[in-house]
Amino acid sequence: MNETEFVAALRKLPLHPGARGLEDDCAVLAIGSETLVITHDMMAEDTHFRSNADMADVAWKLLAANLSDLAAKGAEPVGVLLGHSLGMDDARFLAGLEQGLTAYDVPLMGGDTVATTGTSTYGMTAIGRAVHVPVPSRKGAGVSDAIYITGPVGRAMLGYEGDPDHLEAFNRPVPRLAEGMALAPLVSAMMDISDGLLLDCWRMGWVSGVTLAIESALVPVADRDRLDECVRWGDDYELLFTAPAGTALPVPAHRIGTVRARGHAPLLLDEAPLADPVRLGYRHG
Amino acid sequence: MNETEFVAALRKLPLHPGARGLEDDCAVLAIGSETLVITHDMMAEDTHFRSNADMADVAWKLLAANLSDLAAKGAEPVGVLLGHSLGMDDARFLAGLEQGLTAYDVPLMGGDTVATTGTSTYGMTAIGRAVHVPVPSRKGAGVSDAIYITGPVGRAMLGYEGDPDHLEAFNRPVPRLAEGMALAPLVSAMMDISDGLLLDCWRMGWVSGVTLAIESALVPVADRDRLDECVRWGDDYELLFTAPAGTALPVPAHRIGTVRARGHAPLLLDEAPLADPVRLGYRHG
Repeated sequence: MNETEFVAALRKLPLHPGARGLEDDCAVLAIGSETLVITHDMMAEDTHFRSNADMADVAWKLLAANLSDLAAKGAEPVGVLLGHSLGMDDARFLAGLEQGLTAYDVPLMGGDTVATTGTSTYGMTAIGRAVHVPVPSRKGAGVSDAIYITGPVGRAMLGYEGDPDHLEAFNRPVPRLAEGMALAPLVSAMMDISDGLLLDCWRMGWVSGVTLAIESALVPVADRDRLDECVRWGDDYELLFTAPAGTALPVPAHRIGTVRARGHAPLLLDEAPLADPVRLGYRHG
Repeated sequence: MNETEFVAALRKLPLHPGARGLEDDCAVLAIGSETLVITHDMMAEDTHFRSNADMADVAWKLLAANLSDLAAKGAEPVGVLLGHSLGMDDARFLAGLEQGLTAYDVPLMGGDTVATTGTSTYGMTAIGRAVHVPVPSRKGAGVSDAIYITGPVGRAMLGYEGDPDHLEAFNRPVPRLAEGMALAPLVSAMMDISDGLLLDCWRMGWVSGVTLAIESALVPVADRDRLDECVRWGDDYELLFTAPAGTALPVPAHRIGTVRARGHAPLLLDEAPLADPVRLGYRHG
């Protein structure tokens, strides 16, 4: 069973209304007068990081990936729970975790620690408080809305390859928490770009029932000569969002296209329809 | 780094007040007028289950272990998030998960799915709503309180060994949710017995700053001839709690001893002090 098949099967289980059909980055839980946003992300050795990676970077990235999901929902972090496999360089993991928790002023709430015999897997659950209700979703991009991203894509790719100018972008990504909270009241749809710009645009177009028409010349990329790769590589953690054209934005963002009524595909790149999500980005499993 | 050392290091990180110093089963999060209880438990191949286990049982047990932590805090389940490693018998896992979610009327809220290259690790985060505030903790056992457990220990051990009368106890443990909610307003301390009765009594005595004096003849066990093993084996998921002597209990429970002022050890078994937690039960890592 691959990830797509597994998630399709999960959707047939009893779902919480706040699960949003398992089509969003986070669950949304209204509790009294507050609304919580909850997400769980994992990282596995060999799949998400190399066995010789600095475990401090792995811990930071695990935290950043979870906080990025909160950012995409305009949520302020409340705390995280850690699911830890003992056995790699646990002291370095702790050092990186402490740096991240301190940098983002997020406390640890709990978790579990296990001994494992093979490759290591780390999980984290992040809990945030929504600053705006309704909480933005991937669904909701409206026809004629403008499409934006908060920063360039491709930096993580260059960092992964060893480019010294971009190592930080790969090893220590920065979740766009302030941007997400500022944007939440204004956007029609929002998500983070964790799996590659094109794939995530395709997904937003798909669940919103529209077509996202992207102009590649407008997309800020780390290396213009490698545009095709930059828009397919993941791990950049910028925010992708749509808003009515002309909306005054509270944070810098790059307009990369316009939402249209659903055509043949959920995504158009320079007017070429991209109907099939395969090869648009990074797909796990 | 073993689990004890790792958790000690975690306690030095920035902690949420609701983390309870990482000394309890769950985090407690007051949000508006409500109080949420949040826990994260993992199960790893080879450590928590055998590679040839029925993955439906593994999924059930992962859910049950998490719900048991909520039960120990007197919380009503709200939903769970799943961290899933693809690659074992995922269809059986889904079947067991569905059975558990249905049996306990708990919806899935979200999660993550990863491909792994080695042994599989599963994580779950459970969220519950506290039915009573303050939420019971492990801390709080008071001198002269009576000590109770909700049912026998040792059944999971016999099931693990293949005893047909106890297979269900090992493969499909039942979290004591109704009991926990009924007891929460009355107890001075409560926890679930996941790692063995003696070890968990030791822990309760330790964090409460008292001595739990247990009389082995009073402990309900699955096999009286194997008392020593029954009180050390884990996986039974009964509730251990203390309450002022004479409290009218709303659910059946077995009185197994009395809380005393802290003596030489946090635990006395038939008047013998047990100062060292090593070999009292199941310790991961």
